[in-house]
Amino acid sequence: MNKGLLISFEGPDGAGKTTVLERVFPLLEERLARPVIKTREPGGIAIAEKIREIILDVAHTQMDSKTELLLYIAARRQHMVEKIAPALSQGDVVLVDRFIDSSLAYQGYGRGLDKAAIEWLNAYATDERKPDLTLYFDVDTATGLSRIHKDTEREVNRLDLEKKHLHERVRQGYQAILEQDGDHRVVKIDANRPLEDVVQETLLIIEQRVKADEELS
Amino acid sequence: MNKGLLISFEGPDGAGKTTVLERVFPLLEERLARPVIKTREPGGIAIAEKIREIILDVAHTQMDSKTELLLYIAARRQHMVEKIAPALSQGDVVLVDRFIDSSLAYQGYGRGLDKAAIEWLNAYATDERKPDLTLYFDVDTATGLSRIHKDTEREVNRLDLEKKHLHERVRQGYQAILEQDGDHRVVKIDANRPLEDVVQETLLIIEQRVKADEELS
Repeated sequence: MNKGLLISFEGPDGAGKTTVLERVFPLLEERLARPVIKTREPGGIAIAEKIREIILDVAHTQMDSKTELLLYIAARRQHMVEKIAPALSQGDVVLVDRFIDSSLAYQGYGRGLDKAAIEWLNAYATDERKPDLTLYFDVDTATGLSRIHKDTEREVNRLDLEKKHLHERVRQGYQAILEQDGDHRVVKIDANRPLEDVVQETLLIIEQRVKADEELS
Repeated sequence: MNKGLLISFEGPDGAGKTTVLERVFPLLEERLARPVIKTREPGGIAIAEKIREIILDVAHTQMDSKTELLLYIAARRQHMVEKIAPALSQGDVVLVDRFIDSSLAYQGYGRGLDKAAIEWLNAYATDERKPDLTLYFDVDTATGLSRIHKDTEREVNRLDLEKKHLHERVRQGYQAILEQDGDHRVVKIDANRPLEDVVQETLLIIEQRVKADEELS
């Protein structure tokens, strides 16, 4: 399971990480000598997609924060066992859109759930397999939200203010994860810049990490 | 939340606990001076029923044991927050068909998942609210399985043997939970006897517990 490389794409909404992942994926497929796969959370496989439907169902307004977290963790577990771990064990480079740090940033820093408990749950779901490299796409709250809305001129209402506060807490969460990163796995990328610059830097960082891995083995 | 009384019905398949619960429920409604509600796991509310569907879906043959456990725990959390805790906080007697001990007996003793982890998850989902009384319906494996199959003469095949071994491990699990019960909350009921005897004993134990609770308060 440790033969491959697990690379997670993280950041607040509007950082552009999904777009960057879609851009670098075919380029890496061309350039790397080993297989590359891309996947996403929550989802990536049938059981996890079903769990994702429950989480996102607008009828479920009564869903408790801990329930939501536990569903994300269950989806992560199945995703790990069915898709990520088998790919890693055959030596693939796995690009995953959101992983363990999203739970910490959103449910921990964003919603205020106990962070030690989230770390325990992440470890349980992944059998303690952390990413080899985490790309944290950092974006200002104003830029992030304007990318989501594509409408910066709109009047700011109560819900927007709530979104702004949540976005800020999530961003602070990622910042804290970066600062406390004892494994040196998290690299911050300035995602306020034009897409092409972000894509090029991401590509460079991943290629260097893959190269370092090959030199080690 | 501690005003009400939480009473769980536990035991291996074929112990008859669901039948007994259905029998004692209307009798308790008549006899007790306070409201009684009945509910079941996994399920009891819309979100948990959706989770139950994922767990039971026969197409999900690839479901990992930890995923299954995490889904049961997520359903328990929502059930607790949405139904059990509100009922307890208004002083109701809550009868629940399966609860925290089912995870320990089935996923822990039955499937071999780490028991300390299951206890951690149970505590997380319930905010450490244990039942005030747990009725453990104990049944011999032969009797339990014959009640499920209603066909004792049938030839024993490989799957039946597997079921027999699982049933035995689950029963041993409940036995261990009973022996390690530091809170004195678990009472064993011999469920090999005729239904009417089991119903009468169950009724008596619950009435005594409710009476003791009222004398205390």
